[in-house]
Amino acid sequence: MVPHLVTALTGPINELEQRILDSMPSIERWFRLEWMEHTPLFYTSVDVRNAGFKLAAVSTNLFPGGWNNLTPSMLPLAVQAAMAAIEKICPEARNLLIIPQNQAPSPAYWSNLAQLRDIFHMAGLNVCMGSISPDVNKSTVIALPGGDSLTLEPVVRTRSRLGAKHFDPCTILLNHDLRSGVPGILEDLHEQYLLPPLHAASSVRLKSTHLRCYEEVVKRFGKLIGVDPWLMNPLWETCPHVNVHLEADLQRLRDAVDGMLTKVRKRYKEYGIKEKAFVVIKADHHDSVFSATVVRDAKDLGPVWERLAAAQAAAYDEPATLVLQEGVHTNERVNDAVAEPVVYLMDRYVVGGFYRVQAPAGTAETVTDSAANFVPLAFAESTHLPHPGIAPGASAPNRFYMYGVVGRLAMLAGAYEMESTDPQAEFYE
Amino acid sequence: MVPHLVTALTGPINELEQRILDSMPSIERWFRLEWMEHTPLFYTSVDVRNAGFKLAAVSTNLFPGGWNNLTPSMLPLAVQAAMAAIEKICPEARNLLIIPQNQAPSPAYWSNLAQLRDIFHMAGLNVCMGSISPDVNKSTVIALPGGDSLTLEPVVRTRSRLGAKHFDPCTILLNHDLRSGVPGILEDLHEQYLLPPLHAASSVRLKSTHLRCYEEVVKRFGKLIGVDPWLMNPLWETCPHVNVHLEADLQRLRDAVDGMLTKVRKRYKEYGIKEKAFVVIKADHHDSVFSATVVRDAKDLGPVWERLAAAQAAAYDEPATLVLQEGVHTNERVNDAVAEPVVYLMDRYVVGGFYRVQAPAGTAETVTDSAANFVPLAFAESTHLPHPGIAPGASAPNRFYMYGVVGRLAMLAGAYEMESTDPQAEFYE
Repeated sequence: MVPHLVTALTGPINELEQRILDSMPSIERWFRLEWMEHTPLFYTSVDVRNAGFKLAAVSTNLFPGGWNNLTPSMLPLAVQAAMAAIEKICPEARNLLIIPQNQAPSPAYWSNLAQLRDIFHMAGLNVCMGSISPDVNKSTVIALPGGDSLTLEPVVRTRSRLGAKHFDPCTILLNHDLRSGVPGILEDLHEQYLLPPLHAASSVRLKSTHLRCYEEVVKRFGKLIGVDPWLMNPLWETCPHVNVHLEADLQRLRDAVDGMLTKVRKRYKEYGIKEKAFVVIKADHHDSVFSATVVRDAKDLGPVWERLAAAQAAAYDEPATLVLQEGVHTNERVNDAVAEPVVYLMDRYVVGGFYRVQAPAGTAETVTDSAANFVPLAFAESTHLPHPGIAPGASAPNRFYMYGVVGRLAMLAGAYEMESTDPQAEFYE
Repeated sequence: MVPHLVTALTGPINELEQRILDSMPSIERWFRLEWMEHTPLFYTSVDVRNAGFKLAAVSTNLFPGGWNNLTPSMLPLAVQAAMAAIEKICPEARNLLIIPQNQAPSPAYWSNLAQLRDIFHMAGLNVCMGSISPDVNKSTVIALPGGDSLTLEPVVRTRSRLGAKHFDPCTILLNHDLRSGVPGILEDLHEQYLLPPLHAASSVRLKSTHLRCYEEVVKRFGKLIGVDPWLMNPLWETCPHVNVHLEADLQRLRDAVDGMLTKVRKRYKEYGIKEKAFVVIKADHHDSVFSATVVRDAKDLGPVWERLAAAQAAAYDEPATLVLQEGVHTNERVNDAVAEPVVYLMDRYVVGGFYRVQAPAGTAETVTDSAANFVPLAFAESTHLPHPGIAPGASAPNRFYMYGVVGRLAMLAGAYEMESTDPQAEFYE
């Protein structure tokens, strides 16, 4: 099944799909060469948005949950990719410690962990779930739907190693985004592989750094296949150091929003797009309480300013850096519900994906967050099997291949980001 | 579906399956360490035989056909493994030349080639089929069932490179087993990757070399998981330089057969196996006209001797080296038909497999050859998804995982073999 796109099937997205299919060998070669220079992230999920006339990777998660949404037919790919990933990092690996979130927001999260455990076990590792939550002070069994269960062990820290009782891992995999900062228990583990690295923590990542890397990646990719990078990269800019106590800063933000709306409308006109432009305003810091806000008119910044005041108060009155981003409509629909594709990667390989299908009541401009109420709809086919020769927009495998390419662009941007923010980078050069 | 085993489901094969499942992390780690020391073959198919009380890899094909028997659900794995294989050999690769057999024995062979072409195309290569047959002197389109087609191009040889018109490959993949010797057109291609290497040609491979390597691999593997290597490695020996004109040589062969039957019967007794022992006699050279012959009694060597006389006459009266191998029954059945599993590997990854299902009229001792009349029955599930905890013998995924392990043992033996016969080996050391 190809989810329906609300917009006409003759727009720039189909040209993009066609160009991507036609360039498949060059694209794959380009990625191969990139992986010679840049280390792929260990595992990643990427939220993609398809506006019908443009595509964008809107979120790159370095601590992906939701692995339980992969179907049984996707598992062998994930296992094979996990084998490749392990072999590269530590061929001698026996034991893997997975560190889950401290607070599990939902039973689905435990199923996600169980799926990760199974993938790495089938790839040939002994897997232990080691919780760093202060609430887990003894071995704790969690029952899962379907009769399976998951055991959380409290971690045990020695001077230089982290493990669990009778379990000494060579690799530690974080499924905990460290939103509240890096706990000391994870520091100075120089004898073990810790993945992702600590500078991937949500408490230190900046959205602007990722966007800058994504922009760079997409510019080079656009040049490779001869398309306008705007078709995959929404316009964005930062509005630094905004202080809600200064009237001048409100005006500065208003001017920035107005400038961006003007640029977006100009692009829309250029491409004959009839949609209404909008801007999304986010905090540059992942750990800010300021949540993403949609703005359609620069005159209408009241709600933004109110939320910002609350966020600034929560951050000890520290002014905030904001990211303004061209809003990307979600025009893909399953029946009448908004469907947002999510692509899963293990190492350099796209291993599967699914649609987050939202209730039809939600507007197309809803900014997805992890708590959004959604139903997963697994991609019906692999992202590895494009069918050249089929009319653009009409083939699920071709659309999934395109999503896989965008997912890989975002993951590559994440790899650039990790390099650019690596505190130990000077030692490598 | 788990194909039925004729023998009781409580024998040594179930202990072996259980031991293999229990040792999964050690097994995967052991393979990872082996691949650090030894280069996996580029692609391989392995015929496995399941006697109910023992398993064996009976044939390791370095130029595998039959890729068309892989199902659509196996293709993404093959594509992903092909990506990994290409990346390792030549990340800059753009163009791949595949050299097919000169005489296509069946329309299925062309479908096999088309599947290989599609796998490598989806992995991101431009693929051209370059025939070295003197009959292909212009671009030739072959129609395939289902409306697809395949184009054969005559190869073009320059001083140091092989390609086709307007097609200059960096890698050349042989799907031609070079049974009649290595043609000059494939020699001295020092600027391109030629896979498999020329010393993999059927005209120069010796079965005894592969068996020696397989024995070494299985001995080490048996030690790893604590099982008798005989459960995966049939007894074998060579009977060198047999001259049909010498009565003494007939006696020597008879003694050898008798000795092996005695050893096999002793093993059967040890394990409480009621089957009747038999020996298979083969020519050590792959290119001999002497075809594999089953012998149940050392007194009954008449048919062997007759065939050997014909083979010796065809080989300019050169005496032949014979390989005597413990016969392995095929006790796996789909309905009432004999079912022989075949495992497909791309690089180090098992990407799929199927059963060769023969007509019930065929005996369990039939020696499979490529022309055998068979119906492929794809493995219902991936070899990557063992389900620990299920009773041995009752789970298709567990049996397929075991077959995948045996397939990898045979492929590893092939890698050892290629190292031991590499004419350029001295340059590496």
